[in-house]
Parts: sequence; structure tokens; C-alpha cells
Amino acid sequence: MKTPASKVLVVGAGAIGAFYGSLLAKAGAEVSVVCRSDYDTVKQSGFTIVSADLGSYRFMPEQVLKDAADYQGPADYVLLCTKILPGADRAALLRPVVAPQTSIVFIQNGVDIEQEMLAAFPDNEVVSGLAFICCNRIGPGEIAHLAYGRLALGNLPGSVSAKTLELCRLFRETGIDCNASAAIVAERWLKCVWNAPFNPLSVLSGGLSTAEILHSEEPFVRHIMQDVCRIAEALGHPLPVDAVEQNIEKTYRMPPYKTSMLLDYEQGRPLETEAILGNAVRAAERANVSCPYLESLYASIRLKLLADAKRRHSNTACSHAPS
Amino acid sequence: MKTPASKVLVVGAGAIGAFYGSLLAKAGAEVSVVCRSDYDTVKQSGFTIVSADLGSYRFMPEQVLKDAADYQGPADYVLLCTKILPGADRAALLRPVVAPQTSIVFIQNGVDIEQEMLAAFPDNEVVSGLAFICCNRIGPGEIAHLAYGRLALGNLPGSVSAKTLELCRLFRETGIDCNASAAIVAERWLKCVWNAPFNPLSVLSGGLSTAEILHSEEPFVRHIMQDVCRIAEALGHPLPVDAVEQNIEKTYRMPPYKTSMLLDYEQGRPLETEAILGNAVRAAERANVSCPYLESLYASIRLKLLADAKRRHSNTACSHAPS
Repeated sequence: MKTPASKVLVVGAGAIGAFYGSLLAKAGAEVSVVCRSDYDTVKQSGFTIVSADLGSYRFMPEQVLKDAADYQGPADYVLLCTKILPGADRAALLRPVVAPQTSIVFIQNGVDIEQEMLAAFPDNEVVSGLAFICCNRIGPGEIAHLAYGRLALGNLPGSVSAKTLELCRLFRETGIDCNASAAIVAERWLKCVWNAPFNPLSVLSGGLSTAEILHSEEPFVRHIMQDVCRIAEALGHPLPVDAVEQNIEKTYRMPPYKTSMLLDYEQGRPLETEAILGNAVRAAERANVSCPYLESLYASIRLKLLADAKRRHSNTACSHAPS
Repeated sequence: MKTPASKVLVVGAGAIGAFYGSLLAKAGAEVSVVCRSDYDTVKQSGFTIVSADLGSYRFMPEQVLKDAADYQGPADYVLLCTKILPGADRAALLRPVVAPQTSIVFIQNGVDIEQEMLAAFPDNEVVSGLAFICCNRIGPGEIAHLAYGRLALGNLPGSVSAKTLELCRLFRETGIDCNASAAIVAERWLKCVWNAPFNPLSVLSGGLSTAEILHSEEPFVRHIMQDVCRIAEALGHPLPVDAVEQNIEKTYRMPPYKTSMLLDYEQGRPLETEAILGNAVRAAERANVSCPYLESLYASIRLKLLADAKRRHSNTACSHAPS
């Protein structure tokens, strides 16, 4: 006898959510989506996924919802795939659809984003997910999967449940690399070791690629990475001793990349500055760890975003400084 | 009997050089200028100075030269007023006109810029000058003096000679505030306490005023200022214990300013990044002093200038990073 298909609800079906949701549907799950911006298109004809690795295919969700409260559940898994932006209440997005048996899986960027979900859903499995992927929305209901796709999933505070293993199995069935990790919080900090220098510096510089940043300012990049390692360690998540070295070497081997933060910036989308940098700096403060390089990046990018916001609103009148 | 007029040659008669040269001429000195870009205009009709404080006036130099080697000297004082940019040999600019009795006065921005001149002219008086002024070239031979104008002058390595006092007296005769300092190197570092955060952050942010920077990121500004104080102290030039506090308070009282580096940036002129930031960071390395905030600014602005240079030359092809 076949086990019944897992019921999955994707909340925030942008590029990442639609892509990973489509994979679970391929693997036989009953996947529904909450999607606001492209609701009409998706309701009528689903998503079109154009993937470099997996070919082009259509993904027709079981239910297409404007509002999570309308979901016909209960869900075995909810996948939260929104960006983490200031003011967004992640728990509130899920609360209407979380049943006792629901595993809450967030596939999101940033560090120190666990506590909010653990506190909100103390009686549920909470699974932290990291996606290493390049994929973009290219039109209403149209998602381009450009490269990569690996997922890492792990239960919080640090284990792997049978249900999480089952989710990994479903993802792997579609040909995507998905591994379960009992140390997913450390993996999140490890990802931050790379993100912390390259994401903001690509924006601050005004468009440099990862290769250009590294070639020009490797010592600075290393300092930022070391700040992140120190914070992770102070929080009880020590990273591999060669974490910095590995990330430097990996980046030298990569082709020159535009970071996702630079792409967001160039396309006028909000940046995950707080989730990636702000949370790291605040965690350092709590742990009483010094992270001057990270702090500098965070302050500098905040100033840049402030200048951009001011420019959008009006021109600032100001005089000249003596020098 | 009247003492003969002092012979002064201004090398690098841009806005600063022309303005201070014009003051010495007002005070009765025989002032000549080396000026390349506006040579024809200045040769024919001198400089026109439009000053908020001093009114508008014409300054006809005694000799207008394309090349310092043509100067009919010897000069009592040469005033070097060029920007300090990488690759420029400051001593070479002066060598053709330095006689045994010539005092070498440089009115320039930056820190740690003394040794080059002391080494090049070991037998001359070398005077370090700091200008607190806002003045711009607004056309060929046309200089707008917008605000301020204070000068500080001091002999290197740390004294005040009779000749320097005489030069101060000449400047003061024209109504400009000019003080002699036996600790001019420390004063240069003190100026850097203000310049180090506000100049680069105004450019990195993409146009914020000093007030906006300070209101938004005061702790960061303080950290940068403290880095500069630590370097100065390690080099044997301890700054006042309240140097940071004073600079913060002063900036809160000032109207919102565009820094000179931001004006240079907006007008496509080269920035004195190396003289202000690079020299400070290198001095810190020599003195084995940590200055992570300053280092971060220096690296970030170098990346921005690199991106600008690349943009001017070609578009960088690059792919997308996973995240």
C-alpha cells in the first residue's frame, strides 16, 4: 500500500518557494502555494519553471491561495520562503495554517533567525533550511533556475527528525542535492561567512563581482569572515578551523559572480541587510564579541540605503565643509 | 627703512594656492605662481577671487609660469598647494626653485606626508600647513572663496621659526586667521579625526551630508575617530583626550555639509583617499596599531573607486552567485 502523499504548503511562492515547491510536486507531494503578486496567473496556469539542469516544466499547485487562512489542510509541511525584511512577522504568516502535526520549514537567508520561530511554535517541529541556489522570477509565474540548488535542512535546536529525512528524500528524488544536518545553525553561520563580505561589498562598491572584490581586497574579506567565525563560536556554533580559507579558495575558483544582494539592489528590490548583517552584529553585541569589520560594513551599507531613500524623496540641501 | 617684500612662489595654483597666494599679495609680498591648466587666462588677466568674507578682487601674480624652472628667484617661501595624489613626486615639483634660503611650505591635505619633504630638503626650513577652508575654482582663473579660511603653520619636525611667524603675520594682515603651531603634526592628525569618517562615508553612502552620517551612525563615526587617535598617539602625537567628543559636538553644531571629498567625487576629480586614509592605515601598520574601522573604510572606498574605473572602461561580464 502506498503511503499517502505529503501535504505541503509553500508560503511566499517567489522564485525560491515556487522552485522548491515544484520539486516536491514532481516527487509526488500535494503542493499548494500562497502567492500574492502573481496570483491570477498562477491560479490559471501554474508556474513555468525554466531550469538549466532540469529542463522546462509546468508546476500546477494543488491549491493556489491569496491568503494562507484559506488553505484546506492540515499541512504536513509548511515551507516559508519569503525574504526576511524588517517589520515582517514571519510567525504571523504561518499561524493560520499550522496544525499540531505540521512541520515548519523555513528556507530563508540570514543568521540568528531561529528563535523567533521556535518561540512562536514551541510544540511543532521547526526545521531550518538553507538554499544554495541561483534562481529568479523572470515574469508573472515564470521562474528561471539558473544554477545550483543544494538544500540543507535540520531541525532546531539541533537534530534531524524522521519527517525531515523524508523531506530530504523527496527533494533528492528530483535530482537536487539535499542533505540533513544536525548542526544547521552552524551551517547558517558558515553560509554567512561567505555572504557577509561579498553581498554588501558588491553593493557598496557599486557593482563589483566576487572575483574583483577578492582580488582587490583579500585581507579585508578575510577580516570580515573572521568576525563572523568569532561570533558563531561565541554563540556555541564553532565553524571549521579552515572555514575562512575554504571560502577564500572556493571564491577564487568560482567564475566572477554578481551576488544576490547586488542583483536585488540593481533591480530595486529590498535587501536582506538586516537578516544577514544586522542580525550578525546584534548577536555579536549580545555575546560581547568584537566584530569591527562587520560593523563597518553594516553601518556603511545602512548609510548607502539611507542616501538612496533620501534621493528618492527629495534633494538634500547642504553646504560645503572646510578642508 | 621698509624691509624688502617677501618673494613667494605658489606651486600648484588651484583654488587653495591662488587664494592664499592672493592674500600674501594683498599683504605686500611679491607673489608668483606656477599654474598649468589656466595659464593663458592667468598670464593675461590674473585671478579673480570672489570671496564671501573679503569681497571680490583681482590678483595679478608677479610672474605667471608654466614651469617652476623659469622662476626668477630666489624665493623666500615656496607654497606647495597641489593635491597629494598617488604617483605625484612633491619634491620634484619644488626642486628647481628651492634655494638655500627658501622655506618650503606645503598647504596640503592628509597625514604622514612630512617625511618625504624633510628627506628631500634636509637643509631647508620645511613648514607644514593646514587650511580649513572652503574654496573652489569656478572657471579659468576664477576662484570662489565660500567660507572659512583658517591656516595653521608649523616647522617640521616640531617648532616655529621666525620666518614662519612672519608668514603668519602676513596672512593675518589680510584678515585671515592664521596660527603658528609647534605641534603641527598632531594638528594634522587632529584634522584627520574629522576627515577620516566624514570624507569617505559621504562618498561611500552616495552623497550623504555630515549631519546625516552623524545622526544615523554616530557610534561608527566615533569608532573611526578613535582609530585615528590611537594611530596618532602611537606615532608620538597624542591628541587631546576629548578630541573625539569635540569633533562629534562640533559636527552636530555645523549645518549639514557636503565634504570636499564628496564634491571632488561628484565633479569627477581625483580623491585624496591615499593621503587621508591610506597613509593613516599604513602608519598604523608601521606602528603596529589596530585600526579596523579605518581599514574597512579604506578598503570599501578603494573598491568603489575600482568599480567606477571599471565602469568607465567596460562592462564586466559576470554570472550569478548562489544564495
